[in-house]
Amino acid sequence: MTLPADAIPSDDLRSLLQGARRPILLGVAGDSGSGKTTYTHGIRRLLGNDMVTSIPLDGYHREDRAQRRRSGRLPLDPANNHLDLVEEHLRALRAGKPVEVPVYNHQTGCFDAPQIVRPAPVVVIEGLHALYQHLLPQLDFALYVDTDRDVKWRWKFERDVSYRGHDPAELENEIQRREAAYKQWIDFQKTSADVVVKIHESDLGELAHQQYDGPVPDNCYHMEIVTAPVNLHLPALHLPMNLNAAMEADARPFMLAMVPSSYWGKRVNVTHIDGVTPIEAIQQLEEEIMALTGIARDLDSCLVSDEAQNSTMRLAQSLVAWPFLGKVRCLLSQWQHEDLG
Amino acid sequence: MTLPADAIPSDDLRSLLQGARRPILLGVAGDSGSGKTTYTHGIRRLLGNDMVTSIPLDGYHREDRAQRRRSGRLPLDPANNHLDLVEEHLRALRAGKPVEVPVYNHQTGCFDAPQIVRPAPVVVIEGLHALYQHLLPQLDFALYVDTDRDVKWRWKFERDVSYRGHDPAELENEIQRREAAYKQWIDFQKTSADVVVKIHESDLGELAHQQYDGPVPDNCYHMEIVTAPVNLHLPALHLPMNLNAAMEADARPFMLAMVPSSYWGKRVNVTHIDGVTPIEAIQQLEEEIMALTGIARDLDSCLVSDEAQNSTMRLAQSLVAWPFLGKVRCLLSQWQHEDLG
Repeated sequence: MTLPADAIPSDDLRSLLQGARRPILLGVAGDSGSGKTTYTHGIRRLLGNDMVTSIPLDGYHREDRAQRRRSGRLPLDPANNHLDLVEEHLRALRAGKPVEVPVYNHQTGCFDAPQIVRPAPVVVIEGLHALYQHLLPQLDFALYVDTDRDVKWRWKFERDVSYRGHDPAELENEIQRREAAYKQWIDFQKTSADVVVKIHESDLGELAHQQYDGPVPDNCYHMEIVTAPVNLHLPALHLPMNLNAAMEADARPFMLAMVPSSYWGKRVNVTHIDGVTPIEAIQQLEEEIMALTGIARDLDSCLVSDEAQNSTMRLAQSLVAWPFLGKVRCLLSQWQHEDLG
Repeated sequence: MTLPADAIPSDDLRSLLQGARRPILLGVAGDSGSGKTTYTHGIRRLLGNDMVTSIPLDGYHREDRAQRRRSGRLPLDPANNHLDLVEEHLRALRAGKPVEVPVYNHQTGCFDAPQIVRPAPVVVIEGLHALYQHLLPQLDFALYVDTDRDVKWRWKFERDVSYRGHDPAELENEIQRREAAYKQWIDFQKTSADVVVKIHESDLGELAHQQYDGPVPDNCYHMEIVTAPVNLHLPALHLPMNLNAAMEADARPFMLAMVPSSYWGKRVNVTHIDGVTPIEAIQQLEEEIMALTGIARDLDSCLVSDEAQNSTMRLAQSLVAWPFLGKVRCLLSQWQHEDLG
């Protein structure tokens, strides 16, 4: 037996995206190593992997590692990137056309053969310059990942010194030089973003009374999700916090706050999270998001150990995905109205 | 048709309390005007008015207003109170016996005729010295309300200057003299409490990004509920926070945090709340508490306008009632086991 077509519910985002008139473009900017892909992964997980194509902008650098060593120029310099080609590609992708994406290989430091990329319903452009002025008109949504210098440097040291055996003094020099270039060419893009994720070291100790007395959770950050309000009439999105934790000797610390604020002249709401949000609460929140997107929950894919450990990051993924999905829903209904009108 | 006795569910706290072997005694200490009765009201509302008797300790002052004016002594001085009589009365109440409670009339400044008080299943003793050393052994649970000096002074000024027409300079002098006495004779009792409620002015502005841009909610406080963990296996107590608020232009600020901490040498958990918790979330939390106590929700009594406005206070009432009710449940099961054994 087959159901008649009109009996199949089709108002979830996945169904609507499959029939959309054009791909939706999301730009994600921020420093290298700031954790940009975390948020793209979150959107993939909540919307469905088949709905998302990601394009890293590294391939659009003008110079490979050997050339940069000779020239002394940094990839952070926009003049050292083929941003015109990025713009051309964004126009093509927005029109639903495949593009030939150049590929930079981080292992070898060389360019690999370019790859043909066909746009999925959502195309994510991730890179240092993703929110540059002439790219913005091609983007439907702009995300900036703003990781504190001390967090970024700690991550880089842990990776490059502990795992890759780099010389700490040389790394420190390189980091300082890069940071000035970051300030000049990258940082300002956050003033144009729809959502900015700010990542700080955890501040939980400041909320303790006479002294912080809990185990310090691993991978615990104070994160701010700065969101421009949109009044979209999205459904409620509940995080059910179990306050009976206060009665338990092995309670884990958490913080959750939401404050109307201003950010580079825009009216925003800032959601703060810190510490450990219980996995049950996060799962319920994700289920409410998945009810909007229409993806079936695959428990195995959600409970990968890395994400289960790091609940602030996982909650932040949802808090970033939500306004993006709201924008997607808004565009889709606008197109539906136009098609009917 | 009548149900057989064993078909009537009787494991809710109200039923168990009605058959308990003796009244349960709760001491509530803190400065005058610190808001002690707010928390007793919360327990009344969540457990049932018929379950609770309150005894204010004001009646046990040795001197009335005219006598104090002549002697220059303050009621904060324990020697200026009949604390031996309080102790005697606590022993009698604990044994289920009625007592003749002296009554101080705040309007006239004189003592009224004493009143016979018969203990309900829960007896609350509220006053400046409720957690004094020789009273503590008679108490089953000790609560201290620790309102910041600036909040307390603001409340007193608003009441005495704006509404009662007192002279501000005179009031300031009186407050300063009282504060030293408070420090000497009252404040230290918090080191023996099971739960301490700390009330600060709101700190929400500090969580804003570039500037706090929301309407400043009325009666908004930063409150800390300092709770000694007990591992009682109480049910979960969910506060469902709607994070879609971040998408709304008229979002109201809130903060919720829980941090393991230490407090006067004890291991505690500190729950922080600030701002406006949506009424729907508080109602769901209260329903979970009422499922434990077995009281039927009377919507009219819950939605009194004053409490609906002041959601931090209302949430704090629940967060204070919960560990007290946990202690009640613990005592009741202990007695059940002893009766069976």
